[in-house]
Amino acid sequence: MSQALLLSDPESLRFHAAEQHILGRLASGEFPPGARLPSLRAVSRTLAVSIATATRAYLELERKGLIEARPRSGYFVRRAVGALPEPRLAPARPAPPIAVNRSGLIAAALSALGDASLLPLGVVCPSPEVLPGPQLARIMAGVLRGGAGMDLNYTPIAGLMDLRRQVAFSRQALGEAAAPEDVLVTSGAMEALYIALRVLTRPGDSVAIPTPTYYCFLQLLETMGVRAVEVRSHPGRGVDPGELAGVLDRHEVAACVLCPNFNNPDGSLMPEEAKAEVVRLLAERRIPLVEDDVYGDLPFGPGRPGTCKQHDREGLVLSCSSFSKTLAPGWRVGWILPGRFMAEALRVKSSTNVSTAAPVQMALAEYLAGGRFERHLKTLRQVNQRSVASLRHCLSAEFPPGTRASDPQGGSHLWVELPPGGDGVDLFLKARAAGIGIVPGNVFSTRDEFRNFIRLSSGGLWNEKLREGVRELGRLAAAAALG
Amino acid sequence: MSQALLLSDPESLRFHAAEQHILGRLASGEFPPGARLPSLRAVSRTLAVSIATATRAYLELERKGLIEARPRSGYFVRRAVGALPEPRLAPARPAPPIAVNRSGLIAAALSALGDASLLPLGVVCPSPEVLPGPQLARIMAGVLRGGAGMDLNYTPIAGLMDLRRQVAFSRQALGEAAAPEDVLVTSGAMEALYIALRVLTRPGDSVAIPTPTYYCFLQLLETMGVRAVEVRSHPGRGVDPGELAGVLDRHEVAACVLCPNFNNPDGSLMPEEAKAEVVRLLAERRIPLVEDDVYGDLPFGPGRPGTCKQHDREGLVLSCSSFSKTLAPGWRVGWILPGRFMAEALRVKSSTNVSTAAPVQMALAEYLAGGRFERHLKTLRQVNQRSVASLRHCLSAEFPPGTRASDPQGGSHLWVELPPGGDGVDLFLKARAAGIGIVPGNVFSTRDEFRNFIRLSSGGLWNEKLREGVRELGRLAAAAALG
Repeated sequence: MSQALLLSDPESLRFHAAEQHILGRLASGEFPPGARLPSLRAVSRTLAVSIATATRAYLELERKGLIEARPRSGYFVRRAVGALPEPRLAPARPAPPIAVNRSGLIAAALSALGDASLLPLGVVCPSPEVLPGPQLARIMAGVLRGGAGMDLNYTPIAGLMDLRRQVAFSRQALGEAAAPEDVLVTSGAMEALYIALRVLTRPGDSVAIPTPTYYCFLQLLETMGVRAVEVRSHPGRGVDPGELAGVLDRHEVAACVLCPNFNNPDGSLMPEEAKAEVVRLLAERRIPLVEDDVYGDLPFGPGRPGTCKQHDREGLVLSCSSFSKTLAPGWRVGWILPGRFMAEALRVKSSTNVSTAAPVQMALAEYLAGGRFERHLKTLRQVNQRSVASLRHCLSAEFPPGTRASDPQGGSHLWVELPPGGDGVDLFLKARAAGIGIVPGNVFSTRDEFRNFIRLSSGGLWNEKLREGVRELGRLAAAAALG
Repeated sequence: MSQALLLSDPESLRFHAAEQHILGRLASGEFPPGARLPSLRAVSRTLAVSIATATRAYLELERKGLIEARPRSGYFVRRAVGALPEPRLAPARPAPPIAVNRSGLIAAALSALGDASLLPLGVVCPSPEVLPGPQLARIMAGVLRGGAGMDLNYTPIAGLMDLRRQVAFSRQALGEAAAPEDVLVTSGAMEALYIALRVLTRPGDSVAIPTPTYYCFLQLLETMGVRAVEVRSHPGRGVDPGELAGVLDRHEVAACVLCPNFNNPDGSLMPEEAKAEVVRLLAERRIPLVEDDVYGDLPFGPGRPGTCKQHDREGLVLSCSSFSKTLAPGWRVGWILPGRFMAEALRVKSSTNVSTAAPVQMALAEYLAGGRFERHLKTLRQVNQRSVASLRHCLSAEFPPGTRASDPQGGSHLWVELPPGGDGVDLFLKARAAGIGIVPGNVFSTRDEFRNFIRLSSGGLWNEKLREGVRELGRLAAAAALG
């Protein structure tokens, strides 16, 4: 981390506190754009800091373009804090199938993600601090001690029946027709997506995917020799059924993959009627839909969003999810409900790694049976909502004017559009050199159209270190914009 | 399990004990073929059973073809117990590449393996009774309690460095050039094989494999659309380098896959000079070798067999193994040393399931660092050797004349050739109906040439239930031979 992130001297601490205080009051709406700010003397008195410190704080906010000094009149609010506009929609254009070739860049981004020395602003995973680690550890100890060595045996290929039952219960609660026998336990949602694609495609086939989409998924297509037909994801509402239908009219695809709930990276949420419509139009064309629902359990509001699988009458929706965003990323436990493709899915699973690790399945089944998952989810949603709001607010204050960001209604990630001319890869490399992990936007599509984007997530946390990391990112982005 | 396996009534118990006593004396060499057996009166006295019980024991041994009654002379030994000849070598024939199509049968065999209600004579995995389960459970509890939530995070794609280091140490001890950075941790050896094949082949390619070979591996080829070029495995010494060279001269292959140490299912062990020769002739042709070494740590004798990887100077040997046959099958932890293909292997791993489950990696790294693995292996080898010897002995006594079996020098599995006309699939189905799990021979090749074979393993155990299971199998095999 750069020197700028070290707040060791008392004057810097005081200055920083003053700036944050003013930012907070700007964000609260107390001072709308155009309003006059308190005088330097008033700030000095209220915060018990020197006039010099108050002046430095105002100058810093002026530098960021948030406020302006008017001669002999004082300081005025120039633009609203916290009011980042949404990223712009990519222009509609023909999207012929394209061979995916993103591996080099994705490998660089992934290796940064695995680097524990970096400030974690790039990982869309809950931090251990917001997960029930001690509880899971106690349960694991108990099931291994009391299991008579059951953990040493392979579970059935489809997984431990106790866990399949728990997953089926939770899907039934969503209105999906799901028996325990319909569930295949996987090593995370990535393996669920992998199984779905192995079952549905052959090399040379094309698959319809949203753009932007999860980069590991693009890497999977690339290693499998499957081409992508990209359908743009609208900020806020995701893939439009009409646009999808148009693409399907023009191109033959073996499957369609969507993340309707809080798509990674843009956080978009497909309206319920759009989900139903997509299922209908795909079923009509006999095209299987692979639904990635890993963020579905993490809405900010009270209602859990629905799924495409709910509307599936043909067994053509393959629903994929995991516990990686809610309980234990490192435990690698997910599932697929492969619909009519169960026999083929079992063949792929058994010839990939036989079955998922028994100890983690046993402990999760026990945790879920204990009935404390819902309460934990409720807390996690609040934690995510607060950290995303803080991240957005900090962005609006620290990033150069012209920055845009998604305003997600769930999940924990932000999709950030840099001002015109901004370069996400350049920022990624500079951030890494400064000890900060982020993900550059153009790994999320097969083309360079998201070159001026980055994805940020703070994994449900918000603290001084993360705030300083975002400040530093803002400085780097501003310097790049000037240079 | 059928009625025949229930030994509840005292007379059956006495009769059974008498039969076993005589079998033991036959196997000890005390009574060679042609020798006269003790009189019924002598048996009755020695074992304190009635003359009727002694008669019943002799009649049963006669029924099995082990002894014969000669009028007015008593009972004589007809054939030696424990002297099963080796299975015969399949005839050499041209082996054009063949599309693999074994899934239906393999699925049936696999579902039987996952059925805990069956007597486990089909699973080549150590039983929990012979594994350090309580110790592993204590270590797992410790690492999760003391790990500050580290288990909840993804490990790097290549695995936990502590575990990669332990694996590298153990491979260096074999004379392999292996740094921790050369190791990629996988979800079991099956995933290691899967990664190797994803890296090395495209659909339509051919791969040279031994016949017989591990059926999950055939299933992998089938799901990937890769064809098999079969090279016969000789009883005892496995694939012959000269025969392999001949096959490679006739067919273009993208890779070769071998299990040189105690091949599954035939238990063959390639001589060290054959391993060196195979590496040489493949390197000459620039053909990568995938080496499955899962049984290499389990020799019966004092010396650990070498590997092909030892002889690799080109980075063309991809070495695959796991802890599934030595420590914890259900934990699903293995590894691949992919040689020059590390970058491609990491791409496949990350787009299959990102990384292997952290808790099991952490606990195994800690167990290995504790230094008790070698002592455990020593015990496990003895346990395997005893159980395989008992199984062979029991086979020789209980199976119809003409039965043959491998005489492995390591591992825990036996490859059994039924008498001419015997049908392994028929026996598999009848055994399953009688509550006994075995694996039919023809799932181990693409053709029907091992139709009269079965694979047996007792997972390092030997007890009365297993003995009764083998007796029942022998009865079923004999009845089929008669019918």
